Amino acid sequence: MTTAGTGNASILEGNSFKAGDVESLPPHTRALVERRQRSLGPSYRLFYRSPVELVRGKGAYAWDADGTEYLDLYNNVPSLGHSHPAVVEAVSRQLAQLNTHTRYLHRGILDYAEDLISTLPSDDYQLMLVCTGSEANDLALRVGRAVTGGTAWIATSEAYHGNTALVTAHSPSLSGAERMDPALRVVDPPDTYREGATAGSAFLDRIRRAIAEIESSGDGLAGLIADTSFSSDGVFTGEPGMITAAIDLVHAHGGVFIADEVQPGFARTGEAFWGFARHGVVPDIVTTGKPMGNGFPVAGMIARRDVLEPFASARPYFNTFGGNPVAVAAAQAVLDTIRSEGLQQHARETGDAFRAQLRETAASHPVIGDVRGAGLYTGVELVGDPVTKEPATARALAVIESLRDHGVLTSVCGPRNNVLKLRPPLAFAAADIPRAIEALETALRETSD
Amino acid sequence: MTTAGTGNASILEGNSFKAGDVESLPPHTRALVERRQRSLGPSYRLFYRSPVELVRGKGAYAWDADGTEYLDLYNNVPSLGHSHPAVVEAVSRQLAQLNTHTRYLHRGILDYAEDLISTLPSDDYQLMLVCTGSEANDLALRVGRAVTGGTAWIATSEAYHGNTALVTAHSPSLSGAERMDPALRVVDPPDTYREGATAGSAFLDRIRRAIAEIESSGDGLAGLIADTSFSSDGVFTGEPGMITAAIDLVHAHGGVFIADEVQPGFARTGEAFWGFARHGVVPDIVTTGKPMGNGFPVAGMIARRDVLEPFASARPYFNTFGGNPVAVAAAQAVLDTIRSEGLQQHARETGDAFRAQLRETAASHPVIGDVRGAGLYTGVELVGDPVTKEPATARALAVIESLRDHGVLTSVCGPRNNVLKLRPPLAFAAADIPRAIEALETALRETSD
Repeated sequence: MTTAGTGNASILEGNSFKAGDVESLPPHTRALVERRQRSLGPSYRLFYRSPVELVRGKGAYAWDADGTEYLDLYNNVPSLGHSHPAVVEAVSRQLAQLNTHTRYLHRGILDYAEDLISTLPSDDYQLMLVCTGSEANDLALRVGRAVTGGTAWIATSEAYHGNTALVTAHSPSLSGAERMDPALRVVDPPDTYREGATAGSAFLDRIRRAIAEIESSGDGLAGLIADTSFSSDGVFTGEPGMITAAIDLVHAHGGVFIADEVQPGFARTGEAFWGFARHGVVPDIVTTGKPMGNGFPVAGMIARRDVLEPFASARPYFNTFGGNPVAVAAAQAVLDTIRSEGLQQHARETGDAFRAQLRETAASHPVIGDVRGAGLYTGVELVGDPVTKEPATARALAVIESLRDHGVLTSVCGPRNNVLKLRPPLAFAAADIPRAIEALETALRETSD
Repeated sequence: MTTAGTGNASILEGNSFKAGDVESLPPHTRALVERRQRSLGPSYRLFYRSPVELVRGKGAYAWDADGTEYLDLYNNVPSLGHSHPAVVEAVSRQLAQLNTHTRYLHRGILDYAEDLISTLPSDDYQLMLVCTGSEANDLALRVGRAVTGGTAWIATSEAYHGNTALVTAHSPSLSGAERMDPALRVVDPPDTYREGATAGSAFLDRIRRAIAEIESSGDGLAGLIADTSFSSDGVFTGEPGMITAAIDLVHAHGGVFIADEVQPGFARTGEAFWGFARHGVVPDIVTTGKPMGNGFPVAGMIARRDVLEPFASARPYFNTFGGNPVAVAAAQAVLDTIRSEGLQQHARETGDAFRAQLRETAASHPVIGDVRGAGLYTGVELVGDPVTKEPATARALAVIESLRDHGVLTSVCGPRNNVLKLRPPLAFAAADIPRAIEALETALRETSD
């Protein structure tokens, strides 16, 4: 366990364009980058040494301004697929009809809330719709504090939960740049690569120590906030049930568990509709974001009625755009499409087939230390040595640049940015696997010493 | 000046359905309300004793499920007008083409940023796009603290700036339900009705006392966050220049001024594109929200380059949906339409004509103590006695219920909920004025003792 605020540089490195490289860009790219530097705030980051200007997308593919085609292995915002016609149609239709807010009655939000709640462990949950995963987590942290009376949260060491002041202070991946909440305790994720079969029990031990520290400090335990696929930590989906004992322990000590489903939710892992459901745990609060509306800004916080009550009965909460009829139309189209296209099963089967091929590639490339994941969420960890497992950060960054040059979009994650993060739109199909594998093998060849 | 956290009940009263009244509702309304009570969190509020189920909107009109037509005098989210075709077309087209995020280059966001910045006092501003006014203000408060090194903000007594943890703690209108930031100082707005021509100098005095208090406390002045139309405070647009000296004083003491333009921005006041521009002040930070995308979730924080630098050069900030190509398409369509339809001039002329008629109504209804505003933002203050100016809260609430029954949507504002808040979509036209006036006169008759 590390203490909060010890600093963490991964967010400042990784896959991003460096402003100093502007002179080496092709003229049309340079012109756009310079316009950005003038009119957008300097907090903005661009992917790649030579940033990509995307202009069109369809399914798992996108095209840049020169007409170059990219296989998109990265983007879970267009979660179903770029420009999915069901979402385009639903949003366009509702936008032409009415777009107000939740202070008027509307059937759409009720149909959607009931439909979404039917995917949860019981019908004893209530939904609050917001616009972003950050807003959902901001609300969730306050709801959890209100019901427990505690202030201290536990989060994992590379977790990123969003961008508001409160959520930033509970996102250890930002600790190199931002001040963490003084009560926050940070634990390492269950590292299935380095800890193997003991990852779950090692994680449980770390949670136990964090709880003990909180209880002895007098801060009061609020609970654990975690992405059950540990995406920013390096993608540790693990065996189903791996984290169940840790969640049970949080509950036994009076804490709540916030399942941040911005990454694993909405059928992504193939094995379940939600990430937490893979592990058979019952969350107190579920937060959603990115994949919920296929790119339309819609997000939600779902909480058990008794968990929500102390916060929500005491105060009004209004989110102007949250749950407006158009946002709900987008979200309903996503839910309907996941079912009508059988995308959960598709994610499981395609993801399994993809990882099987990646493991074949790994067999002849010792730099690939580990291939892991569930459904269409895969981490490929690059290491300098398969025994010491030393992270091969520079190689990973070189590989994603090479992949970009060969028409495949992806990025890196993990504390050392040495894990390729393969998280394509769910439209990614078995027929796309050979292209992905060929590009990866080319990139590995091109980046070997 | 009141101190933070003294409590404020207005947010808990006002125009909202009471759960206990469910049995008195028509059966189909009751069924919807009960579904909401089961599946949505109890923080949700509905307008009206008998909530309205809107199903369709066009321009300044909306229709409920029974086909009843409403003249909408309230909603500034569909700021141009309900279902404006330019926004429907722009969003539908871009959604079918591409919807990614700001880590890839896209010309749309650059064109928009340059266009929006051209409306500001100089080109020395930079834009950061987010999804909601709350996110914009959350970011603005942090940017202001970073550049000043101070933590103490000044806000007005009924101000509502948004719903994140940080922004909630700086929204005195919520102080009945939420804990305010310990460093926050709360000042009363310039009340042009009760303070008359001295409102500006009285406001200046209150700002001076707040600054002195902050400076003697050692908290360090961050600055002033204010909606220059003082909407939640009861709509005090005042004479142009009324607040200029107060802003100058904040600047002289090293504080920044955040102009929260969620209410007065985007041509609403008719006299200028931005609310702050009416007063000729130069803000350090401008935040936008509701009217920016005609209902599409898009918002922004615009800051002077030197103000933004200490925050933004030190840390990355990413907002997944913020500034995505579809959000930008909506925002650009709004900006284009304001110009092509001449909506700023329209707001000024139509608003002036509307207030002239409202003043005629006031002449024969002494309950109307004041008619004030700018452009299509009007406050009509109801009082029990024109001399004592005692707020007529119950009457105001009865009037908006009666207006609803006569096909006009609006609501109340101000610390005592006795100010009718007339803020129609900009599509509201001179031809709609007689209908609004007739409904108001009917409502005043029906609610007189």
